[in-house]
Amino acid sequence: MRGELIRVLSEIEEKANELKLDGYNPDVVVMGREAYEFVKTLANEEFGGDEELLELSGLKVRIVDELGGDALIMDSRAVGFEARAIRRIKVVR
Amino acid sequence: MRGELIRVLSEIEEKANELKLDGYNPDVVVMGREAYEFVKTLANEEFGGDEELLELSGLKVRIVDELGGDALIMDSRAVGFEARAIRRIKVVR
Repeated sequence: MRGELIRVLSEIEEKANELKLDGYNPDVVVMGREAYEFVKTLANEEFGGDEELLELSGLKVRIVDELGGDALIMDSRAVGFEARAIRRIKVVR
Repeated sequence: MRGELIRVLSEIEEKANELKLDGYNPDVVVMGREAYEFVKTLANEEFGGDEELLELSGLKVRIVDELGGDALIMDSRAVGFEARAIRRIKVVR
């Protein structure tokens, strides 16, 4: 389980770093419903409690159910204007 | 006030049609916090009541606060993979 949590956090960080290298300021990770519940369960198993996920790797967590098991890492000021201001990862394999 | 509501709905529909012409299936409008509150106020003024906004122009409404006064119209399955699967509009002028 811990391995999966580490995998997801590293992938988020990797994409955030890609955005920074492109000159963006990643500030939000938008998660699908399944992706959110998956990571929330892992985090609560790891740290105990039944907390909601507010931040991951320093990025604010938001939910857009329709993304399902995936998540988008984005710079909220540039996304939709510039194609490279967003990345997508598969959270639930 | 009605004019503003019509403007926003038409802009959402225009972007959704652009996505369809590009072969996408727009299904979600992701609104910033100010954008959401702005349209919700207009809609409740127009139709009475104090309802939350669940759908606009046939698209599911989701909120990502950080988008502020703007909104993203997207195909949730393609966004993040394909640059053209997302459009942005200014809701609050």
